[in-house]
Amino acid sequence: MNTLINTIEIIGIFAFALSGILEARKKGMDIVGVYSVGMITAFGGGSLRDLVLNRHPLFWVEHYWYPILLLLLSFLAGFITRQVTSHTRVMTSVLVLDGLGLGLFAASGASVAAASGCHPFISSLLGVTTGVFGGVLRDIICNEIPYVFQRTELYATCAFAGAWSYLAVAGTAGNELAAVMSCISVTFILRIAAIRYKIRLPI
Amino acid sequence: MNTLINTIEIIGIFAFALSGILEARKKGMDIVGVYSVGMITAFGGGSLRDLVLNRHPLFWVEHYWYPILLLLLSFLAGFITRQVTSHTRVMTSVLVLDGLGLGLFAASGASVAAASGCHPFISSLLGVTTGVFGGVLRDIICNEIPYVFQRTELYATCAFAGAWSYLAVAGTAGNELAAVMSCISVTFILRIAAIRYKIRLPI
Amino acid sequence: MNTLINTIEIIGIFAFALSGILEARKKGMDIVGVYSVGMITAFGGGSLRDLVLNRHPLFWVEHYWYPILLLLLSFLAGFITRQVTSHTRVMTSVLVLDGLGLGLFAASGASVAAASGCHPFISSLLGVTTGVFGGVLRDIICNEIPYVFQRTELYATCAFAGAWSYLAVAGTAGNELAAVMSCISVTFILRIAAIRYKIRLPI
Repeated sequence: MNTLINTIEIIGIFAFALSGILEARKKGMDIVGVYSVGMITAFGGGSLRDLVLNRHPLFWVEHYWYPILLLLLSFLAGFITRQVTSHTRVMTSVLVLDGLGLGLFAASGASVAAASGCHPFISSLLGVTTGVFGGVLRDIICNEIPYVFQRTELYATCAFAGAWSYLAVAGTAGNELAAVMSCISVTFILRIAAIRYKIRLPI
Repeated sequence: MNTLINTIEIIGIFAFALSGILEARKKGMDIVGVYSVGMITAFGGGSLRDLVLNRHPLFWVEHYWYPILLLLLSFLAGFITRQVTSHTRVMTSVLVLDGLGLGLFAASGASVAAASGCHPFISSLLGVTTGVFGGVLRDIICNEIPYVFQRTELYATCAFAGAWSYLAVAGTAGNELAAVMSCISVTFILRIAAIRYKIRLPI
Repeated sequence: MNTLINTIEIIGIFAFALSGILEARKKGMDIVGVYSVGMITAFGGGSLRDLVLNRHPLFWVEHYWYPILLLLLSFLAGFITRQVTSHTRVMTSVLVLDGLGLGLFAASGASVAAASGCHPFISSLLGVTTGVFGGVLRDIICNEIPYVFQRTELYATCAFAGAWSYLAVAGTAGNELAAVMSCISVTFILRIAAIRYKIRLPI
């Protein structure tokens, strides 16, 4: 189970870091800014989860190769993304990876919270929080009202549905792998559908 | 004493959540944004208090019905506030409730810090912090310079005076209930007077 | 060693608080805003370090005279800085003190992290974070994109080099004092050179 959650984290971290890196480059930041915003976007949600649930050491302090990998990614991104970020295909890949990361992190948050004995509603909230908090910090640093709080295509709602599907499957089938996969699928499909058909919540 | 502090928290949470919800609606956020800003405004101060003083689980993780109640409140507020927020009477009620919440949270912060063995000055600071930090986060998320740091009618100052009155009464009379009531009264009366007579600090 | 780190902290706190106080006054805040931004700038980095590494009580909760001294400093600064902030010499002193504080805090972050058994790369990151996080919070509160993430003269990079020089000296010579002095010197000289010769990172 720990191996599964770690694998989850690596993919999610990569996707989130990339969204932070691209946003930082768009704002004209240098490598320090790019790396910092990438780190904060990738590790923000998991750090809040660990602080709230009093888990120490924090996951990126323990897995010290995560921040090292992100440093390499920041340098690489600098070389690669120069021309390509205007391409629609690249931005679509980022949206897809981000949807995957959202589902992965929501599962990790809900899983850790449930294992800590939290009430299901709190577990679902911590799933959503783990999924979206990195992006909230990214937007605050870039001096914008967080994307996730604005009235755009469903985002946090997808993670919320995914977290509940995790809790439902884990609670009935008792199979961690199935529960995680269920969370990722529900979150991802809902998110892609929301983008494709411009689904928004009413005010 | 625990029952008293819990009751304190519920009233304060309601008042603060409402101020967050109204602000989020003013910014045109959907239900996810409204609920998130409401939660952050209501739980921000107490969460910082608990993290700084290493109290686990955090109060809203333990009292899981708080976040559930706020979800209901967010839905209700959506239906109710549509027409009424332009009414002066409604906005006055919010200011009054907010002043009450400020006093309640200041008492809760100072009380918990003093019980943890903090120095009185630190206890008074944690009282103020518990009272104002949720609003600071609300304003940062809504992309504004926090209200409490701007030169407007006394706000943090009221909580500061209230926290000291808590410490004075708790230290001399040793009565928790009297100390909490004293803090609420001092904070609330000072805050209402500051609004009524436009009392500001000199630069 | 503890005495050394405490002394380090006091000088760094003074320098950082001053930069926060001046920024807050520039934004027209009253004494509450000035004190709060001064506190957050001075204590933000060390608080994050302590929360991430699970060290309790937080350093400013334990050393309660730090916040009291900052309150006096905030009042004094109000009287003193009225006319002088337009003077180039004053602003240069602030830059010099800030460079010193950056080196001091980077050493304190790297030292505490290494003593907690963190990997050297994580220790260097926590050194940088302890050095720059207060300023990041200051800029977020003042509603600006953090200075340290923008493409200006080297700042976080100096702390990064300094933190590594700390780790190198502490790891080879095993002398804490020499390691701290090395970190301060490397950070400070690099920072002053960056300002003097307008050294920036490439995008």
